[in-house]
Amino acid sequence: MEFAERGYDGATVRVIADRARVDPAMVNHWFGSKEALFVASLEVPIDPEQLAKKVVPGPPEELGERMVRNFLTVWDATDGRPLATLVRSVASHESAAKLMREFVGRLIIGRIVGSVAPDRLELRGALAGSQMVGLAMIRYVLRLEPLASADHPTVVAAVAPNLQRYLTGPLD
Amino acid sequence: MEFAERGYDGATVRVIADRARVDPAMVNHWFGSKEALFVASLEVPIDPEQLAKKVVPGPPEELGERMVRNFLTVWDATDGRPLATLVRSVASHESAAKLMREFVGRLIIGRIVGSVAPDRLELRGALAGSQMVGLAMIRYVLRLEPLASADHPTVVAAVAPNLQRYLTGPLD
Repeated sequence: MEFAERGYDGATVRVIADRARVDPAMVNHWFGSKEALFVASLEVPIDPEQLAKKVVPGPPEELGERMVRNFLTVWDATDGRPLATLVRSVASHESAAKLMREFVGRLIIGRIVGSVAPDRLELRGALAGSQMVGLAMIRYVLRLEPLASADHPTVVAAVAPNLQRYLTGPLD
Repeated sequence: MEFAERGYDGATVRVIADRARVDPAMVNHWFGSKEALFVASLEVPIDPEQLAKKVVPGPPEELGERMVRNFLTVWDATDGRPLATLVRSVASHESAAKLMREFVGRLIIGRIVGSVAPDRLELRGALAGSQMVGLAMIRYVLRLEPLASADHPTVVAAVAPNLQRYLTGPLD
């Protein structure tokens, strides 16, 4: 896979289209952008463009809450299987881990965390990532109760303040 | 594997020894207990008995800090590979996920979180688990910088207060 071989920056829509034997214009028509194509290749039910538009607007001190709410809505709509596949893939292949690092760095950290972080953007992004990935693992992959079936208000009340500290609070 | 087939409670040292064609006394000699044998079967470099002895004693309001410190010491000593194997296994097999849930519930939540939680023990345990699993995923499996190579004081200062809130803070 072109992204896995060359990384996000090295891959071009033209080469991807050539390898798939389709017209690059078709790729742009269906996916809209290299970024959307990249996200499609990760097979996660997240459109970062939509995600950023949904969670970024609003009070910065409530971004953590909007992120947790949106996260639960997106992943509760699946049966957790795409997430388990993603986790296996990242834990098995360095190329998948590299893609995921780029995805997290470019889209999640750059756009979402970057909209509020007062300093240490990369560290805050990685910390926020640790909370979101951990929540995903416990709720959808390990399915540890009571977090696996807790309702959204309970999870938001418990997790959002911690996420918010990573986004905008003091880190030392 | 006996634990995977019968779960922690259903498995007996006698049957495990029989299946391995060894004397049960030998199993007890080498592993000391069914619990230690169970942990050995998970292939994680954690002895819950030792872990509990190391992190539980001390001020309850600093348990989060002791947990993060100990966690970094234990896992930094590996190259992260046992953790990636464990993650793949949990994401691939319900039997492995079940074992891990029992491990987390019985040993981590029961002994460690239970030593300080003022209420909602199971929820606090699952939340603390989400932070620890997430840290493990980001630092050792995904290896996202700067968290992948941040020094211990930086990680402890950033993560311990969040973990501590899960252990003893207000959750709503």
